[in-house]
This record gives sequence, C-alpha cells and structure tokens, in this order.
Amino acid sequence: MAPSVAVENLNPKVLKCEYAVRGEIVIHAQRLQQQLQTQPGSLPFDEILYCNIGNPQSLGQQPVTFFREVLALCDHPSLLEKEETKSLFSADAISRAKRILSTIPGRATGAYSHSQGIKGLRDAIAAGIALRDGFPANADDIFVTDGASPGVHMMMQLLLRDEKDGILCPIPQYPLYSASIALHGGTLIPYYLDEKTGWGLEISELKKQLEDARSKGIDVRALVVINPGNPTGQVLAEDNQCDIVRFCKNEGLVLLADEVYQENIYVDDKKFNSFKKIARSIGYGEDDLPLVSFQSVSKGYYGECGKRGGYMEITGFSASVREQVYKIASVNLCSNITGQILASLIMNPPKEGDESYAAYKAEKDGILQSLARRAKALEDAFNNLEGISCNKAEGAMYLFPQIHLPQKAIEAAKAAKKAPDAFYALRLLEATGIVVVPGSGFGQVSSRNMAYQVHDPAAGRQDPRRDHPLQGVP
Amino acid sequence: MAPSVAVENLNPKVLKCEYAVRGEIVIHAQRLQQQLQTQPGSLPFDEILYCNIGNPQSLGQQPVTFFREVLALCDHPSLLEKEETKSLFSADAISRAKRILSTIPGRATGAYSHSQGIKGLRDAIAAGIALRDGFPANADDIFVTDGASPGVHMMMQLLLRDEKDGILCPIPQYPLYSASIALHGGTLIPYYLDEKTGWGLEISELKKQLEDARSKGIDVRALVVINPGNPTGQVLAEDNQCDIVRFCKNEGLVLLADEVYQENIYVDDKKFNSFKKIARSIGYGEDDLPLVSFQSVSKGYYGECGKRGGYMEITGFSASVREQVYKIASVNLCSNITGQILASLIMNPPKEGDESYAAYKAEKDGILQSLARRAKALEDAFNNLEGISCNKAEGAMYLFPQIHLPQKAIEAAKAAKKAPDAFYALRLLEATGIVVVPGSGFGQVSSRNMAYQVHDPAAGRQDPRRDHPLQGVP
Repeated sequence: MAPSVAVENLNPKVLKCEYAVRGEIVIHAQRLQQQLQTQPGSLPFDEILYCNIGNPQSLGQQPVTFFREVLALCDHPSLLEKEETKSLFSADAISRAKRILSTIPGRATGAYSHSQGIKGLRDAIAAGIALRDGFPANADDIFVTDGASPGVHMMMQLLLRDEKDGILCPIPQYPLYSASIALHGGTLIPYYLDEKTGWGLEISELKKQLEDARSKGIDVRALVVINPGNPTGQVLAEDNQCDIVRFCKNEGLVLLADEVYQENIYVDDKKFNSFKKIARSIGYGEDDLPLVSFQSVSKGYYGECGKRGGYMEITGFSASVREQVYKIASVNLCSNITGQILASLIMNPPKEGDESYAAYKAEKDGILQSLARRAKALEDAFNNLEGISCNKAEGAMYLFPQIHLPQKAIEAAKAAKKAPDAFYALRLLEATGIVVVPGSGFGQVSSRNMAYQVHDPAAGRQDPRRDHPLQGVP
Repeated sequence: MAPSVAVENLNPKVLKCEYAVRGEIVIHAQRLQQQLQTQPGSLPFDEILYCNIGNPQSLGQQPVTFFREVLALCDHPSLLEKEETKSLFSADAISRAKRILSTIPGRATGAYSHSQGIKGLRDAIAAGIALRDGFPANADDIFVTDGASPGVHMMMQLLLRDEKDGILCPIPQYPLYSASIALHGGTLIPYYLDEKTGWGLEISELKKQLEDARSKGIDVRALVVINPGNPTGQVLAEDNQCDIVRFCKNEGLVLLADEVYQENIYVDDKKFNSFKKIARSIGYGEDDLPLVSFQSVSKGYYGECGKRGGYMEITGFSASVREQVYKIASVNLCSNITGQILASLIMNPPKEGDESYAAYKAEKDGILQSLARRAKALEDAFNNLEGISCNKAEGAMYLFPQIHLPQKAIEAAKAAKKAPDAFYALRLLEATGIVVVPGSGFGQVSSRNMAYQVHDPAAGRQDPRRDHPLQGVP
C-alpha cells in the first residue's frame, strides 16, 4: 500500500508555487506573536508590526463610516423599518441601502447572485468607471470577484495551456502573479523595471524579453502591468501607457492591467489613467485590444481587505471567449455579496450635496494624506540611513529600498543557509517585531542575467544587493 | 499575427469543464427574465422560479435574525457604543458581536486575516464540531473558506497531478466535482448510486470501480462522498459509513466528505453522523485516515449562500502536506470575514438560556419543517404523476425524479439536437418559468455501461430514461 497522500505525490505545480508575502518570515512572525501571548516580555518588542502586505486596517486605519453604515443596513434590512435607525445612520446611507436592496432580487443579500455579480451593482460599477474615464463602460463587461486575486487566477486559468504559454510580468512583481502562473503551469517571462530611472518601464525591454521568449518557443499570451506599481510604487506616465497599449495591440497580447492602487497616488505631478481610457483616447476600440482591468476594495483609501471585494472589467474578448470566463466564474457560483456591495460603493461614493459627503471626504482625505505623509517620511528615513537607498514613493502602499549589506552579513547568511535578504528580514523581525518581505520574494536581482526567475528561484541568491519593501509605518 | 485570444487557444481544461447547474438552461432563463422585464405579459408566466440550485433565500426564505444582527454589529462596530442599539438588537447578539470583535486583532473586520481564518473563529468552529461529534476538534485543522466550493478546488489542485490521477465520485453527483476535476486535469472515476435501493452506496460498487480504474493505470487518490446526498437526498446509514471509512483506510484513499447538508434531514429514522465521528468511533485516529470534511453556511436552515462562508476540517495529513494546503490558501490571502463570522455562528448558534434562543429556535424549526413539508409534498406529487417516479426525500434540498419520456418526445429532442432531458427541461422552462437541471448534468444514465462519463458527456444522451432534480417549490 503506497502512502495515500505525501509531499512526494502532490501536484508538482503546487510544490513549485511560492508566495513570499505570506511565506517563511510571516509564519515565523506568527510563532513570535504566540510567544508574546504566552510569555509576555520574552522578546525585545511588545507587538508584531505586519508590514509584509497592504493591510491598512490591521495597522489601525479606520473603515469609511458611510460604507460600513450601508453594509450593516444591507446585512440586517429589518433595521430600515425601525424609527431608531434614523438617529443611528445617515440619511444617505439609509437611502443607498434601500436602493441597493431594491436591485437585489427579493432583497436577498443571502442568496447566490448572477455569477458575474448582481446586475444593479454592476450597473453602478460601470457608471463609476465611465465617470472616472470619460468613456462608456458596460455592466456586461464587469465580473465581480472576491478581491482582485480570484480574477487574476481566472485569467491565468483561461490563458495558460502548458509551460509553453508565457505571461510577461514586471520584476519586481507582486508574487500573486508568479504564484498563479506556477499553479496554472505556465511560464513567467520577466521584464525588468529600471531602479535607476524610478522603476521605469521601457518598451525596448518589453520587446527584448518578448523576442527572447519567442525564440525559445514560448507563446506569450499576455502582458501584466501593475500601475501604480506593487511593490515599487511608481506611477506610469501617460505617453508610456500609450506605448504599452500599442505594443500589446501590435504583438497580439492580452493586457492584464492591475489597477488596484488607482486611488493611491501621493505626488502632484502624477495622475492615474486607466489603460482602458488610454486605449480609447488613442482611438483603439474593443476589437483592437483584449484588455482586463482589475480593481479591489482592499486598497485605495478604503482598505477593506477582509471584505474580499473587487471586479475585473473585460473588454475586447469575443463572445465565445467571454462565455468561457463566465463558465469559470459560475463554477464558484458567485463572489460574496458584502464584497459586491462594497465594490459598488467604492466606485460610487457619496457626492457633493449628500448628507454624508463632508464626513466621507474628511475621512478619505485624512487617510490619503496620512498614507502620503508616511510614504514620504519613510522614503526620507531610508535615504538618510547608511547603506540604504530608496526611490520616490509616488503611489501604491509600499517602499522598496535597496539595502547594501556588508560582506560579513552576507557570509553570516550563507553560513545560515539563507539568502542574504531573507537573513536580513529575519534578523529585523527578531530584533524589532517588524515583518517585511525580502526582495527576492518579488523576483528582484541586481543583475539582469537571471531569466525565468520563477523557474529557478535559487539563482541569484548569492547576490549582495538586496531590496525589501516596507509598508508605511506610522 | 495570430489572434491573441480565441476559443481555439484557451486552456483545453477550461473548455472541457461543464457546470450544468449554471449552464445552458439557466442562461436561457436569464434571457427570459429580461424579456419579462422589457415585455411584461409576453410569456405564459410572470416570474422565473430558479429551482436549479439550493438557493433558499432567492425563493423567499428569511435569514435567521440572530445571525444578521451579529453581522450588522460586526460590520459597523461603532453601533456598539450607542444607547439606541440596545433597543434595536438582542442582548446576546450584542455580547456575541463584542466577543467576536475581541478575537479579531484590532477589531478590524476589514483586515486580511490569517489565511486559515481568524483564530478565535476557528476555535468557535472547532468547539461546535466537538459538541456535535463528541470527539475533540482542533482549530489548527480548520481552513475557513468562501463557501465549500473553494475548499473542494483546493483539494483537487493539491491531489491531481495529471489525467492519470483519479477521484472516485458518486453518480449522480453535484457537478462541482466533475467541473473541478476537469479544471485541474484529473480523471473522474464514477461509482453509481443505486436508484432502486434509494440511491444506495454499495461497497462492492466502490471496489469494482476502483479496481477497474487501477487496471487502467489510474492512481486513485480520493473518494468523494456527499452525505446527505446532492442531488439525490439520501442519508447514509451508520454501518454503511463505517464500511466506507474502512474501505478508504484499506485502499489508501483520502476521504473527501461533503457534509454541507448536515442539518437538512427530514425523516425521523435517519440521523447525520460526520465521517470524522464515525472514524473515531471505530477507533481510527489521525494516522489511519486522511479525511477532509466540508461545511458551508449556504445550506442547512441558515441558507446564507450569498455570504460565501464555509470551512474544511482536515485531519490525517502530515505536517508537510498541511503546509502545502496552507500555501494554496495563502495565495488567496483569506476568505471574507463576514463569511468567517457566519461560519462560527452556525457552528455556535444561541443556546438555551440566551435571550435570542426562543426566537432563533422558532425560526430554525419553522424553516426546517417547511423544507421537510415541501420535500414530502413534491415527492408525493411526483409519484402521483404519470410517467414520473421519485425516491424518498430523506435530506438535502433536492428531489431527483425519474421521468419516462414518450418516444415522440425523444424523437423531437433528437430533431432539435438536444439530449431528451435537456429538451424536457427547456420546454418546462418555456411553459412554466421553472428552472431545473437535466439529470445528464449530474452524470446520470440508465445503464451502467458508461465509465468515465465526465470524459464523454455525449455518451448515453439517446437514453429515454432521464432524471431531473427539483428544488422544493412552495
């Protein structure tokens, strides 16, 4: 009798998948957290500060009141019939909850919805996109998802047939992409962002990597662009985006646009433009470019990570391809209704004249100003530290400084059989309780000699130049 | 330039996957629903009655008040500080919400949680399991998920390496299993439930199919058992369950126990026993049997499908295999917190002495009695109709009658290039607005000659004996 289930007989794609933002260092942090509970005072710090992932409410950010009022009323609609409710909730939260419930068949927030999400909520999301972009958006193009991650997985599942199918991804990258590509058996084709030019995205680099992959027989299916960048925080310039759109059209690539940080821009000279707006602005219609835009309730000023809401807007797919996307969505029935409602709210927040508007705007501005202030404070702090340099934090929720480790530290890491950056991050955790992610988890390397990093994660680990991100610390 | 994305160059596993409960007939129903809105009176009915899936709140079932009170308070915790709240919410809902919030770091229901779910909620779930079974349960064994479906997908992703890996599944089966196996590239090994003995599950049939699969070089990794049955409604007898547990141990199979209908039993002489309780009762410990139990907030008397809550309890996996499960869970960060809270509530509802207990019990009993009454009414109605016969509805939420179609109907179906059961279901929809799922969507066939049905869905479509399920109609 063979052992029924052992690591040796698991799906090798699962074994190959790595996910650094919740990997070894986070697991060690959870152990230390338990130790703090059972043996207070046994460590040189009193709490663990999780800066490994954009999870603002875990670091004390408060949810936007209007959004939570509406969620509470939709969860327990009988409140809407009570007189006391009027003194507990704002008038526009009450009317918004009523409007939302009226679009849900039977007002049933406990029923499975259409697999793309409740039609009335998708209408609201599409209206929000149209207002943002100045170009029409269609509810039929919206697939509401449990956060952005399931949307990314669906696209990888759809596009990747085997390891000869490739996806162009930025390096450094949010490891969801490498993890999802590994799980679905494809090949990550890296293109490198240029740290010297503020994590610039060069079309010449895209072309070079695309041609290189094609020369190896890889069918490159899609280009992932994360804008604002994760973990690098850069905001793409409009003409750069135009070039990217043209590149995708000319090369026959699906453009997978991770736009979850669209509200997180901290510098005056940069502005968010969706790739759909850019494509339409240069005259590209549906048929010119298959384009998927991912948005999430977890980021922005809302930071509602635990609600797992988000959507993808799909344009430029044929009806028959769209049917296949719908089928995958339907196998999971639907995304959670609370997250669906929240996705409609972030795309249609209170407007001037609404009772909640002033309070909403104060909360929003306060959160965004605090994020911007902390990003700048961290950037300055890093650049004032010996051996550390850091690019400008233009957007998103992370900084990705470069750390020059002394030779002795590298040797100590080698002796401990750790990558130098992982060794540094572990020592940082043990000394301070601060949890960061080593740059190698994002595929970052100093030289560009390492291709297909996701297939050879050990390569480049001897390199002395290591980056790590720090989420804004108060 | 090749077309960048077309059905021809999509992942063939996606193309192969079928999901009948949200397939052609449901899509047609959605079209008719739109027609009813734009052209009222143009169809011989006024509304569409979706009986294709267990979605009770879409058919008017009301949510349990206590659960929704707690959710609303957790969504908007500042309510807990207001005096008016005491008159709007029950005292035990208020204290429960406070207790839940105190177990969430920073009381942050908007933060990502531990990838297995919030520890305090997993403690509550484990306590509920222990109380139900009379055997200990451990929070570390619980993975809270967005409904049961993602848990099933995770297990398939973990176990299936390629098409030489097989999973034993009941036929008829809930098509999540065939869909998930197809998406992950494995092979469904059918075992047939015996309609003549009330959908009996015979060990001899399991053995026969297992040996047959092995003789074809298939490595059979797991056995799926759905108890109470979906879509067949039978409840397994205790001695049958003991035999199944022994079979899995002796044959080295993972037992995947779909136990989402554990509260839905409508006959006095049957009782739900979890497979873990059965295994422990006959003296099997952790090391004897890898066992996964799936539970969901979508079924039972709660019927909270839209909240997407659920969990899997994993026992008998080695630490290193468990690590891989955790890694897959972590790639999706965490399940939604509202669903997590609800999963803890259904496993720990109000108890005698709590303020809400009487109201809670009245709601629960009312719902379960109504489901039982409707199941019996439907069963009797079917058995009184000419050409239809139906087994006893012991549990779950469906009936799966056998319909003897006249030869002319079969010929008309053939002329329309439809399977006879799909043709019948479409005609039923067009005549009455009632949406059902053809039995072929569950793999049902009259003869047992068709093996590996999921790989050859066209086989058997000429068969005159067709089944279809009807969810309880009021």
